[in-house]
Amino acid sequence: MVIAALGPEGTFSHELVVRLCREEPLLLPTISRVFAMVENGEAIGFVPIENSEAGGVGPTLDGLCDYDVSITGECYLPVHHHLASSLSLDEITVIYAHPQTHEQCSRALDRLTIPVIHTSSNAESALLADSKEGAAAVISDGAAAYYHIPIILRDLQNSRSNTTRFIRIDRDPYTEGDAVKCSILIDPAQDSPGLLHALLSPFAERKINLSRIESRPSGRGIGSYRFFLDFEAVPTANDALAVLKRKGLVREFGCYPRLEVPE
Amino acid sequence: MVIAALGPEGTFSHELVVRLCREEPLLLPTISRVFAMVENGEAIGFVPIENSEAGGVGPTLDGLCDYDVSITGECYLPVHHHLASSLSLDEITVIYAHPQTHEQCSRALDRLTIPVIHTSSNAESALLADSKEGAAAVISDGAAAYYHIPIILRDLQNSRSNTTRFIRIDRDPYTEGDAVKCSILIDPAQDSPGLLHALLSPFAERKINLSRIESRPSGRGIGSYRFFLDFEAVPTANDALAVLKRKGLVREFGCYPRLEVPE
Repeated sequence: MVIAALGPEGTFSHELVVRLCREEPLLLPTISRVFAMVENGEAIGFVPIENSEAGGVGPTLDGLCDYDVSITGECYLPVHHHLASSLSLDEITVIYAHPQTHEQCSRALDRLTIPVIHTSSNAESALLADSKEGAAAVISDGAAAYYHIPIILRDLQNSRSNTTRFIRIDRDPYTEGDAVKCSILIDPAQDSPGLLHALLSPFAERKINLSRIESRPSGRGIGSYRFFLDFEAVPTANDALAVLKRKGLVREFGCYPRLEVPE
Repeated sequence: MVIAALGPEGTFSHELVVRLCREEPLLLPTISRVFAMVENGEAIGFVPIENSEAGGVGPTLDGLCDYDVSITGECYLPVHHHLASSLSLDEITVIYAHPQTHEQCSRALDRLTIPVIHTSSNAESALLADSKEGAAAVISDGAAAYYHIPIILRDLQNSRSNTTRFIRIDRDPYTEGDAVKCSILIDPAQDSPGLLHALLSPFAERKINLSRIESRPSGRGIGSYRFFLDFEAVPTANDALAVLKRKGLVREFGCYPRLEVPE
């Protein structure tokens, strides 16, 4: 089966698939294209869903709403950003960085006091560092290796524990017995005082740990939300889900194991 | 008092301040710089906090966590994206767009079948449309007017109800009697089953409408969150807050009115 992920070459999605699956993914230009291939049964996909600094990844949360897919695994990739250039540090006059990368490395880059120019992707940063005079880029290990640019300063990221959580998506749900987590989407047709509290009650009453709740715009106008919930895959979770389904619209993405990413 | 907002010229923040306050804001390069000026008492600020399509605005939510400011008002700006160029549509060979603008206009841009190149800001899109051969940009009314580029196709955005909510921030809280909404941040020192449910109980028991809940990474590693809550400014809200404060760490941003944005 084809494995699809967000490109271009050198993204964290690319790095993840190579390390986890030991094969090259099919790289697509947008996250929604990954979802479309998976829904059509043409691929399994790996997409980023949340980062420990920046929070939820909008296009992935929207893909889960819009496409009929299941979550069949999750994995965690530590995020490291490095300064890469074929020059030495004192020769560098400009640094290329994606705005989100800049934000995640703001403290180190502020200390360097070299002008930072924003790019549309980490791959573009790498290409500019390779082609422009006096240039460096803030990129990952994977991008530096792919584009053959030496790393001259390691670990510029503000937080040492910067981590991105990815999910594996497939057309059919995971059915083995070793699932540890389940994910659902609740779309309350209308808002009312205490609604969210009522939606959480079935879990609280059974002492089921909710590992995550994320609100997303419903698309019905500002102030109207859907909720993504992750909870532990325990036997009482089925009872909680049954209660919840009687209260409103619940979509299940399935229960799934954690996949360990090799070094 | 100086009014600070995110630049460069032609951003939606810029447009909002001009329409609401009838004066030019001081435009700063990042949202966190706006928060820093407000914390120092050097300005009041206007910053985007959520969009009806894209959800919460990360740098603003992080600014509320990191800086000691109050929310003193909210306002809603309809978001319109247009195709702007000095050429006619059949002469255009390339379209410049910020990735988020592209996402919000994906359906119309897919139909045009003209290559789209991503930029680091809507202002950069405008500048490129003005200087490159065969070029157009996807930008707002404000940016098109500021950079004097004719609009040739109006309203490319996927959703007609695309709206961004802004907040007014100030060093001191709002104290007039016409507040309609209050905002708080809850940072549970540790997670436990049913925690969020327990945090919402004081509101549910008093039938106080929570208009919004948004989870953000706590910075203590992946899987650890803080919660932003907005609720209606009713007399019983003070009792709910008092109960909540006995349960955990609550930071209050104050209660505030809605500001109407003139056409």
